[in-house]
Formats: sequence, C-alpha cells, structure tokens
Amino acid sequence: MNTRAVPIWGFEIMNDPNTLARERMIASHPWLVGVRPAAEVMPGMQPNLILHAAPPARWGDMGDLMRGGLIGAALYEGLARTPEEAAEKAQSGAITFDAAQNHGGVAGGVGSITASMPVMVVEDRSNGNIATHFVMEGLGRTLVSGFYDHAVLDRLRWFRDSFAPTLDAAIRAVGGIDLREMMAEALCRGDELHNRNRAGTSMLINAIVPGLIDIGAPGPDIKRALAFLAGNPQFFVGCVLPAAALMLRTARGIPGCSIVTAIGANGKDCGLQVGGLPGRWFVALGDVPKGVLQEGVTQADVAPGCGDSFVGELCGFGASVLPAAPALGPVIGASLEDGLRFAHGAYSVTVGEHPHYKVPALGFRGTPIGFDARKVVATGTLPVIDIAMGHRMPGMGMIGMGVVSPPMQCFEQAVRALDAA
Amino acid sequence: MNTRAVPIWGFEIMNDPNTLARERMIASHPWLVGVRPAAEVMPGMQPNLILHAAPPARWGDMGDLMRGGLIGAALYEGLARTPEEAAEKAQSGAITFDAAQNHGGVAGGVGSITASMPVMVVEDRSNGNIATHFVMEGLGRTLVSGFYDHAVLDRLRWFRDSFAPTLDAAIRAVGGIDLREMMAEALCRGDELHNRNRAGTSMLINAIVPGLIDIGAPGPDIKRALAFLAGNPQFFVGCVLPAAALMLRTARGIPGCSIVTAIGANGKDCGLQVGGLPGRWFVALGDVPKGVLQEGVTQADVAPGCGDSFVGELCGFGASVLPAAPALGPVIGASLEDGLRFAHGAYSVTVGEHPHYKVPALGFRGTPIGFDARKVVATGTLPVIDIAMGHRMPGMGMIGMGVVSPPMQCFEQAVRALDAA
Repeated sequence: MNTRAVPIWGFEIMNDPNTLARERMIASHPWLVGVRPAAEVMPGMQPNLILHAAPPARWGDMGDLMRGGLIGAALYEGLARTPEEAAEKAQSGAITFDAAQNHGGVAGGVGSITASMPVMVVEDRSNGNIATHFVMEGLGRTLVSGFYDHAVLDRLRWFRDSFAPTLDAAIRAVGGIDLREMMAEALCRGDELHNRNRAGTSMLINAIVPGLIDIGAPGPDIKRALAFLAGNPQFFVGCVLPAAALMLRTARGIPGCSIVTAIGANGKDCGLQVGGLPGRWFVALGDVPKGVLQEGVTQADVAPGCGDSFVGELCGFGASVLPAAPALGPVIGASLEDGLRFAHGAYSVTVGEHPHYKVPALGFRGTPIGFDARKVVATGTLPVIDIAMGHRMPGMGMIGMGVVSPPMQCFEQAVRALDAA
Repeated sequence: MNTRAVPIWGFEIMNDPNTLARERMIASHPWLVGVRPAAEVMPGMQPNLILHAAPPARWGDMGDLMRGGLIGAALYEGLARTPEEAAEKAQSGAITFDAAQNHGGVAGGVGSITASMPVMVVEDRSNGNIATHFVMEGLGRTLVSGFYDHAVLDRLRWFRDSFAPTLDAAIRAVGGIDLREMMAEALCRGDELHNRNRAGTSMLINAIVPGLIDIGAPGPDIKRALAFLAGNPQFFVGCVLPAAALMLRTARGIPGCSIVTAIGANGKDCGLQVGGLPGRWFVALGDVPKGVLQEGVTQADVAPGCGDSFVGELCGFGASVLPAAPALGPVIGASLEDGLRFAHGAYSVTVGEHPHYKVPALGFRGTPIGFDARKVVATGTLPVIDIAMGHRMPGMGMIGMGVVSPPMQCFEQAVRALDAA
C-alpha cells in the first residue's frame, strides 16, 4: 500500500502549481560569481538600450524622477553629450528603454543599466540561471538617486575601469561567494536585506579580501576599494536583489501558478507578473510611499515608489521580515509592532516558509515565500515594501524613507487573467 | 534664581556616589590601541606569575577545570616542561597566581595570562586607563577551554611571534579603533557582546585590513590572519571585555558607591568588588550554570561558572541585553521571553541607561549600566550571565552553553561592608 501511496501523493503535490513553485523557490541557491559588463551577461542588451525598473515604459509616459536617472545613464554610456540631447534621442527612439527584469536584470531605485556598465552577476546553482544588478554607488549623490553630475559619472567610470574588474577577479579567485549562507546569517545580524544590509556588506568584504590578496591587487587599489565599501552600507543589496529575482524566477512558466515572479515600480506605474503567465506585466498606477521625510519637504513632494527592489519583499525579505532589523524601524517610520504586522501579513498570503532563511526575532520562523496573487486578492492583504522615497522632480534625489504597497489592481488583473487562461 | 539653582542641583547630583559613577561610566570611551606582551602593559606582571579569572585563589583551593588551564599556561610560558612539574611548582609557590583584574586585565573562561602572552590593549580615552584581555583562540581545543596540547601551544606561539605583532602594527597604523562605535553598532547587528560577537568580529576585521595593507604585511601573513579570524566568531569579545572592565573601573574608589566595579568566577568561587571599597573582593561559592548540554554529559558534570566575562553583563552587555541577540537564545536555552525577563531584571537593579549603547529590539533603550549591590539585595534580583559551561574535570573542555547568576551572598557581603565603612 505504502509503496503506491507515496508516489501518488508526491505526484499530486507536484501537480499543484504553487506547491511546485514553493519547492523550486526553496531549492534556489544563489552564488555571487562575478562583476561583468552588462552587455556580456545580459540577454538582449544593446548599445543604445537603457534598462530601468519595471514595468516597461515609453519615454513620454515616464515620471520626471525616472527620466533624470535615464538621462544620467545616457551621459555615462556616451549616448548623448548633454541632458538635452539625451532627452531628444529618448523621444526620437534613438535611445531605447526596457525593464531590466525583461533581461534577467534588477534595477533598484532610479538606477539603470547600460551596455558597458558593470553588473553584479548572481547564479542560481539549482538551475544555472543568472540575474544581475548594477553596482551600488553608496550614499549621497548617485545615479540610483537620479543624480548625474561629474562626481557621479566619474565614480561609474572608476567602477567600469578599475573597481569592477578587480572585484570580479577577487570573487573568481575565492571560487564565488555563497549568498544563501551570507543572507541567512545577515538575517541573524539585524539586516532585513532590503534597506538594511550593513551586516551583509561587512561579511561580503570579509569574503572578498582574501581574493584581493590572491590576485595580487596593488595595495592602493585594495585600500581604495575597501574605503569605498566601508562607506557603502547598502552595497550588499546589489547581491540580494538578483538572488531574490532568481528565487522568484524559479516559478516562472509553471502553468496555473499564481505566485508573483516579477515586480517593480518605475516611479509612475507598478507592474507584476505571475508564474502561470510568464512575460505578461499586470500594471496599475503606483502608490506613493509614506514614512519619515527629511526637513523641508512634504508628502506632496514624494514620487510614487520606484525600483525593482520590490522583488526583495516578494521573495520574503525586507519589510516582509522587518522584525529581523529592529534598527531600521525608526528610519522608515515603523514601530516594532508595525514590523510584526507586516510580517504576519506576509505569512498570511504566502505559500511557505524558507528552511534556510530563518528569522530569530520571529522565533526562527523561515522567511515567507511565494506571494500568492489569489491569496492577496482573497484576503485584501498587500505585501509591504520598505523603500527610499524620491522627490517627484528630477535632481532632488531621495527625501525620506518609508513603506508602500503595490496596488491591489495588479493582483486583481493577474487573477482575472489566470482564471481566463 | 536659575543661575543658582543649576549648580546646586549639579553639586547635589555629583555628591550622590552612584550618580557620579553613572556619569563616569557613560563618559568611558574605549579604544583598541594595540596588542602587546602582557609584561609590557600590565602592572605587577612577573615572569613566574599567571593571571586567571577572579577572585584570587591559591592553587590548593582551585577547581580542576581552572588548574588545567593554568598548567597549560605554565607550559606555554616555559615555567615547566611537564604538567606534573607545573603542578609541583604551583604547589610549592615557584609559580604564583593572581586575579587578572588585580592587574588591569580580564581573563575570560578558563583562560590565563602569562608575561610573554600578547594581550589586546584597550584604552579608556576618558581617563587614560588601560585594560587587557588575552587574544581569543577560536573554537574547539583552546587554552581558554582548558586544553594545552601541542596544537594549542603552537597557536599561542604563533600569536606571540607573528599574529599579535602584525595585528598590533595594523591597529596602530589605523590610529586605533573606536570600540564604543563598533560595540554600539554590533548591538544593532544581533550581538549581545558576550557570547555572540559575530558582527563585531566582522566589523573589526573590516577595520584592521587597511592597516594590514598599510604596514606592508606579506600576502600569506594577511591571508593566514584573515583565515584565522574568519573561523573565530568570538574574537571581538577580547576587545569587549576590557572595554567593559574599563567602564566598571570608572566607579572604583568613589566613597559610598555601591555599584559593582569588578566581578569574576574562578570555577569554584565567585567574587565581586564595589566602587566604595576598592580592592576588596566579596567572595562566595559560585553557582553552576544551566542551559543546553552537549550529548553524553549531564548537569552533574558541569563545573561552577568560570571566567572574568561576568564583567560584560555587569556593564550592561550579554544576558543583560539578550533581546539584542535573538539568534543566541536557543544556544543557551533561553526563549525570547527569557531574554526580555533578564533585561528587565537588569534594568530594575541598575542606576542608568547608556546613551551610546542602544538596543533596537528594546525600543532603543540604552543598555542598563551600574549594577547597584544595594538594589540587588533589596529586590532579590540577581544579574544573569550567559556563559560557556565547562566540565568539572580538566581536559574535557566546554560541554554546553547556559546562564548563571553570581551568588547573592557576594552582594550581601558588599552591602554590609559598605554599611560598616
């Protein structure tokens, strides 16, 4: 009896698309394997193509915040010599745009990816998939915040010409870096892995230094790299977000699967995909985050949420496990009770708990994985994203930190489309 | 009115010994300034003197666990060629012993300090005081666990001949390391700074590497040092404990002060000092920790608590703020609720909260500082220490992790002596 019952039971389980998705998500095993030029590792990359946070958008439809970042990217890539020329070429179609997630990439904030730009390369060793993210620039004036002055562009050129090739060689020298192990430990060290990545960054530096020694990097290069990393507590998020995207991607293409497999907000719209309908973005007007504003600005100045980093929460990190990072609470305007509420909300609309990513502050519960669009719609419980808040106007940068949710309409559209399929 | 009222109020405050102690404890600002041979930096160090966890004890009165560690120290220092010879010389007085805290040192666990042994040197920049701790050896067979086989002694010689001088030069090259800043951040990264120091160790490595580059340390030396540190998640406690001892020491010698300024347990007795009676140890039989035992041992095998690391909790770290380190709970057999109970107990018998050391998980409350012996006696609430549990027999090492409290008799003796003074 038993010998028959077990395979039948197993077969039935695996016939349930969301259960299959959950098992694949758990198996996903991200490794940081290098830092390479985008054109080398991202499918469909073109010299005049600039990738941004999802969903895809045309220049004429984009918000000012995102446009600022894209102009900076065009200047960096040499696609235009002035902001005006960049805007003209964007309007005419001489410069083209697409969502980074359509090319295996993730673009946090207002950041963008061009052909020559180095990207963190993360490999899912459960299936060989690759995901990428641009190199995080640090605090202050950055392209990821929509700035593109000389200092910003100089830093990006230093990435391309020196820092990224050195980092790439060091990562290869140590045989790649097991991000699953590092992210699991970071959740025990006060990181929620979206807007707090201090412990993860510290561990990543520890892991890279022996590689820097092995490749014989000159002392001044090592010191400049380490000084840069020491002032860049969010550096590790450039590894976390591709890892998150790879976990979500395992569910892509499973017929009938209602789990969110891609998500982003471009400063105007928010869009998501579900596993059963690969490639279809379900889009609605994005909401405006609320939280802690800097002096001199008001809520009316805040742009709708922007960035592909929504994938972090939808993979079970970030605000989905905010109690892991109690130090982040006041930064985003969330109390300890808010954090528990966000986490319990996430558990109520997901399909499992991750056995590798445990949250000690939640009694070692695994992170909530597999956000089920059907459960979101049925319960009315939306995922919560902790997020940097950008000013509506370009060149004003980040003006606060808070939380936002993707609009319910995205989930409703996805469920209707799944029902129709 | 106001101009008179303020100084009078200030004068009265500073006339209260425990309030004065609290202000001095808050001002204490520890920096790691080097790694030097004990004889060079510890007052009263002698070639045939071995320092151990307080209170002071004679060889004939010591427990087997502590004796094992002291024999290992004698062999390392070349004071004896065999364990038998070490025991004979200890018995005869040819080798002498004292509490490390009587010489400005701290000796965690069964660890000990000899004249040639390198020690972490921490300076209190509020007053120029120095405190030290031996270099933490890592996991497994170590002198701090009472082992003294060839591998243990070889590692200590590598410390003395290579690792410590290199580390010392690197620390000096970076101008010393601000431990207050690092410990404050570690409390936001899941360390309670006694038995969990993973984040602190990671940050310390980050801070030291630029110094290693600056001094031109050879690549293989750097890699060996980093590989050793990477496998040594408790390394940072060798900085924390001197910092804690320095904070407590600020209250030493304040007439009438009932705050604990020194404390330790030597595997048999527990002893403490209070600020108003400097140099007097109040001693009682130490209690046996309880917690999580390794397989194959029973509670009857566990030795009474051993180590000067009690100073960590008495300075407001460790189990006094266990909620800072939720990942440590199961390791020592404490639930999240136990952690809150330990912390609330600590707040109930201390005289203030530290403005630099904040615990996000406790709503950013400052660490509880200034354990008042009078409050302990009046409320019956003892400090709780999280601690590695040693086997009663030498050579059996650490057999579990748990919690213990110093005996109430120590506090009662101190209060009686203060009353009599």
